[in-house]
Amino acid sequence: MTAINNSALPNEDGYELWLRYTLIDDDDLLETYRAKIKNLVMDTSTATLRVAQNELLQGLSGLLGQSVSSGAQNNTSGTLLCELSSADVQTELAQVGDEGYVIVSNPDRIIISANTDKGILYGVFAFLRLLQTHQSLDDLHIVSTPKIKLRMLNHWDNLDGTIERGYAGNSLWDWHKLPYYVEPRYTDYARACASIGINATVITSVNASALILTEQYLHKVAALAAVFRPYGLQVYLTARFSAPMEIGGLDTADPLNPDVATWWNDKITEIYQILPDFGGFVVKANSEGQPGPHDYGRIHADGANMLADALAPHGGLVIWRAFVYDADVEEDRFKQANTQLVPQDGTFRENAVLQVKNGPIDFQPRESYHPLFGVMPKTPLLLEVQITQEYLGCATHLVYLAPLFKETLDTDTYCQGEGSTVAKVVDGSLDGHKISGMAAVTNIGNDRNWCGHPFGAGNWYAYGRLAWDYDLSSEQIAHEWLGMTFSNDAHFVETVTQMMIDSREAVVDYMMPLGLHHLFERGHHYGPGPWVDIGRPDWTSIYYHKADKDGVGFDRTSSGSDAISLYHSPYSDQLEDLATCPEEFLLWFHHVAWDYQTKSGRTLWDELCFRYNRGVNTVRHMQHTWDLLESYVDSARFQHVKAMLVLQEREARWWHDACLLYFQTFSGMPIPDEYEQPEQTLDYYINLKHYYVPGIPERRFDKEGSGW
Amino acid sequence: MTAINNSALPNEDGYELWLRYTLIDDDDLLETYRAKIKNLVMDTSTATLRVAQNELLQGLSGLLGQSVSSGAQNNTSGTLLCELSSADVQTELAQVGDEGYVIVSNPDRIIISANTDKGILYGVFAFLRLLQTHQSLDDLHIVSTPKIKLRMLNHWDNLDGTIERGYAGNSLWDWHKLPYYVEPRYTDYARACASIGINATVITSVNASALILTEQYLHKVAALAAVFRPYGLQVYLTARFSAPMEIGGLDTADPLNPDVATWWNDKITEIYQILPDFGGFVVKANSEGQPGPHDYGRIHADGANMLADALAPHGGLVIWRAFVYDADVEEDRFKQANTQLVPQDGTFRENAVLQVKNGPIDFQPRESYHPLFGVMPKTPLLLEVQITQEYLGCATHLVYLAPLFKETLDTDTYCQGEGSTVAKVVDGSLDGHKISGMAAVTNIGNDRNWCGHPFGAGNWYAYGRLAWDYDLSSEQIAHEWLGMTFSNDAHFVETVTQMMIDSREAVVDYMMPLGLHHLFERGHHYGPGPWVDIGRPDWTSIYYHKADKDGVGFDRTSSGSDAISLYHSPYSDQLEDLATCPEEFLLWFHHVAWDYQTKSGRTLWDELCFRYNRGVNTVRHMQHTWDLLESYVDSARFQHVKAMLVLQEREARWWHDACLLYFQTFSGMPIPDEYEQPEQTLDYYINLKHYYVPGIPERRFDKEGSGW
Repeated sequence: MTAINNSALPNEDGYELWLRYTLIDDDDLLETYRAKIKNLVMDTSTATLRVAQNELLQGLSGLLGQSVSSGAQNNTSGTLLCELSSADVQTELAQVGDEGYVIVSNPDRIIISANTDKGILYGVFAFLRLLQTHQSLDDLHIVSTPKIKLRMLNHWDNLDGTIERGYAGNSLWDWHKLPYYVEPRYTDYARACASIGINATVITSVNASALILTEQYLHKVAALAAVFRPYGLQVYLTARFSAPMEIGGLDTADPLNPDVATWWNDKITEIYQILPDFGGFVVKANSEGQPGPHDYGRIHADGANMLADALAPHGGLVIWRAFVYDADVEEDRFKQANTQLVPQDGTFRENAVLQVKNGPIDFQPRESYHPLFGVMPKTPLLLEVQITQEYLGCATHLVYLAPLFKETLDTDTYCQGEGSTVAKVVDGSLDGHKISGMAAVTNIGNDRNWCGHPFGAGNWYAYGRLAWDYDLSSEQIAHEWLGMTFSNDAHFVETVTQMMIDSREAVVDYMMPLGLHHLFERGHHYGPGPWVDIGRPDWTSIYYHKADKDGVGFDRTSSGSDAISLYHSPYSDQLEDLATCPEEFLLWFHHVAWDYQTKSGRTLWDELCFRYNRGVNTVRHMQHTWDLLESYVDSARFQHVKAMLVLQEREARWWHDACLLYFQTFSGMPIPDEYEQPEQTLDYYINLKHYYVPGIPERRFDKEGSGW
Repeated sequence: MTAINNSALPNEDGYELWLRYTLIDDDDLLETYRAKIKNLVMDTSTATLRVAQNELLQGLSGLLGQSVSSGAQNNTSGTLLCELSSADVQTELAQVGDEGYVIVSNPDRIIISANTDKGILYGVFAFLRLLQTHQSLDDLHIVSTPKIKLRMLNHWDNLDGTIERGYAGNSLWDWHKLPYYVEPRYTDYARACASIGINATVITSVNASALILTEQYLHKVAALAAVFRPYGLQVYLTARFSAPMEIGGLDTADPLNPDVATWWNDKITEIYQILPDFGGFVVKANSEGQPGPHDYGRIHADGANMLADALAPHGGLVIWRAFVYDADVEEDRFKQANTQLVPQDGTFRENAVLQVKNGPIDFQPRESYHPLFGVMPKTPLLLEVQITQEYLGCATHLVYLAPLFKETLDTDTYCQGEGSTVAKVVDGSLDGHKISGMAAVTNIGNDRNWCGHPFGAGNWYAYGRLAWDYDLSSEQIAHEWLGMTFSNDAHFVETVTQMMIDSREAVVDYMMPLGLHHLFERGHHYGPGPWVDIGRPDWTSIYYHKADKDGVGFDRTSSGSDAISLYHSPYSDQLEDLATCPEEFLLWFHHVAWDYQTKSGRTLWDELCFRYNRGVNTVRHMQHTWDLLESYVDSARFQHVKAMLVLQEREARWWHDACLLYFQTFSGMPIPDEYEQPEQTLDYYINLKHYYVPGIPERRFDKEGSGW
């Protein structure tokens, strides 16, 4: 039931994500595929193999427009054979471990094999992707294994159904009706995750409620876990450190108190009775007001290890967030996690790991990599990224995040000499860790299309693909996603891929170019607020930009906060020197004079004007690009993207105007005539009020000083 | 993208509501329809006619599985002619007014005609309904006109996206992205409303925010109004009485203060500039803490008339809610609206009307009709009903509401002698009012299927159909809705209709039989709370049931609160006498001894046990009935309903156990052996805690004493 569609393509609502399985629209290719896939031979002895078979039958039926016979005729031409430990690919299987898969083909048949049923499932999705993206099935020899072991989603979903920093509706999880009504949506969520190799999900917010650990809620969680299990998706929960007091009746949550340890032991035993394959806990402690071991004079490792000891007998993990900083400490927030945690390297249990954000501040449009990477060799460090666009336009901006994720992964820490990339720290190869992982704060809600903006799902997809193989290029991932989501037409795919790639630099340009950071409006982070100077210093904008008559930027050199010294040489040397510091990080590390001459020959002020202006113009170019592609996309999705781009252009101008007008009060310099002049006054922008911005639970607004 | 479906029918998600337009599955009928509808001749000179044409083309294409030609061949056999003021039906058109329609047919052609384009639109939906419910198209002679003029939905949607008493997700209206992104869902909402004749919608909660009246929000409202306009759906807003202070900068909202009147005049002028066909305001004032004229020593009419005067030049209405009562007044809450408002009859402006709930308390499973009906002849009284199931199981119970709505409409007030039904008060015929109306608090949210429970949409449908024609039977409406929503199979329709009809008495039985009322848990109203005795008296359960050792029930006879005297004789005489009072209202009007002998011969206590037990058993019978119908419904919707019935049975037992155990502490009598005994102790039920029950914005929980 949708509006009348004027295009030839039927309207779509985005619910199917990249698993659309529409009929192959290239007739020759369709005939080729049909000839090669006539008969499916498949073991269905486990629940995972059965969902893999269902997926294949459903996918092939849609893609080929005909049903595939299912039987034992192993040697018929046109056979697709899915079997565990296939004798024909023993060499390849020796390389793919517990989760990888092998796909090979000869003129007579195609084999998907793996060492486990989960590997088969991943192989099935990879095979369907070949068809969905119109790849040849000739002489296939695909041997694929994930580079990262734990490929995790973090849902910041509250038990009241709101999602912190969620811009795509409310929580997927209908706690009120669980465990009785189990929505089909839960299955489709698990399918989508499995299709890109995501194998773990944290279904509750890091700002945790102890309620999730009560028996009433654990049974609800178990109903979800039962749906996710065949798809190889393991459930984790966030643990509120003060839970022993809040739901356990104790008067302390001191990790060294034996009663506290006993309470957690008993609680964890109860959890594993209800959830036999429970993954473990994610903990945000002593950060932004959350309770933690510091409340009792203990250190993070004390807290993590107490939980790790209780989880160990059950095979569970503690994932301790390294996003820790303290308003009462004057030290540059950039440095605080290192100050606290580096001394604890080597003290964490084997089943305790640290989850470290990609950058040292908080998911800004661009950050230098987090300086914990490369300095805690004895502790596995999970890389945390944010898919939901808290600092990237919230609900309304098209920003493709693969380039952002890859920028961090590809950066060389030099911790063990050249080539010691963040990726190699994270995958455990540099330090020989058994555990490795990536985690991403999701952008998934109960909006029909899952992620709000029609391009939001592309970031979910990109994250999963990169966690499996961070060497994939941003372009290749965009190609895949576009082909599966919209069209495989070469012109469409190439054009929109370029638009996606450009989108990340655009948002940096129109929000905070040249290393500016955290200039957001207070609380909801929607729109510009470079003037924000209320609340704790490290939640203000002025703390970060330090603009004055002389210049702008945060001096993190040795004459400033010396945060640069947390990095290894030669990267640190490059950053320290204003002349060699990459311009994208200029104001991130240096306080720079307004008339400083940048590489372009323009003064710093003029370069700021140039970049803000360029950002707005890139969005306009994106609009123009999209408008020319109307014939490739059904009307509903086309119009949706078009409307969002209108909003994005409007908001890019808002950023441009507000930031330049504000910084102009310090620089005293004019915006050069060749650039667009602001539409309104600075006062206008300062006084703009936005109510009920998505992503902040209403109750937070009521709390004095909640302030993030 | 849905779970594998084992039935032959494709899975559906309910989004299409009753406008599914699937291929007619009776081959003979399909051939007949195809022969009779080959060519559409239609005027498309207005936006409304164009959406009517689109609907016809879309509907016929789906139902007939072939497209219908569109042209001017008026005299071809198989022509469907939609024309304004058709010469062939002048006599009929004289009877149908501005909104009615005429459908006639002879062997050669079918004519849909009306006096207005809106009438044509309603006729088109009525015609499609004939096909959707497999009716004959031979010798049609349908002359239909709405009995009630204003057929309105009330959305209790907050601007933060929550819905007070909403159980189907969050608000439909995405205020953050409006007016830029206009979702296809808004169009489909308007289509669904128009298809059942709903012509007005109040899109904001009666507990209003003044923010909706700011220019920023009015432009968002205008974007919705533009979508609704062609569908004949007029937008109303709720007006917060204190808005002149909150957004106008005044220090008073006194309705007799000239500055206040001027502010409203200016504001209303601004509204009509942005929304030229704005309907008017709905106001909840001096009720449950809302601001109003009493704050300034004025009466309701002062407030209503001030707004009415400002709206009158623009043709706008003020709809003043009669749901007014005061915690500081000791008088039986049942009587308070009459005490306040009856003296003001005749003092309201011509464009001011009162909106009166169906009963004197608050949308209970059963209430006697509101005693304002029949005692304010000089004031048009709109009837307000509640579709959302605040007191009927919230998110999880199947309860068909047509019987409840009709019970009120059909009751005789005797205000002008026998036959003076509530319906005739409401439709204005008794008192010769120009305005008449019904309003319903919706159950619509952004759940994919709109109303949460798959049977919830049946109540939206039933409300619309009854507001158009309250003489339709509950059975006929169920037939229509089931046929359009699920299947026209006679066995299915008959069986499920009976289940729906039974569902209303079931909920009365298992929640509060024999005239018990308002025994709900505090605040969220989810589940039983007969023990509730905190907060203002008229928000407690003990205020309403008055159970003690001697008996139970609220004495509203002349020896009690004398509320019965608000009714006319002979209804009042019948109620006053315990022997003639209908048993369904026994404890609503009388305090009755536990050993009182009821009509069944059982004591009051035993009769309570019997009825609570019967209620639970009816739900079990509904489960059994549904389980046998699996082959008629697609798997997704079948399983959804099945899961909800499991929950309903569980919750019916909860009501049974909690209420009987509680009342047993007064009666001291045993639950007879033939009935099910409680599973748990009374303490267990009293201590049951439910967190985050849908329908209460979280922020309300934070307020001390919010208490409803």
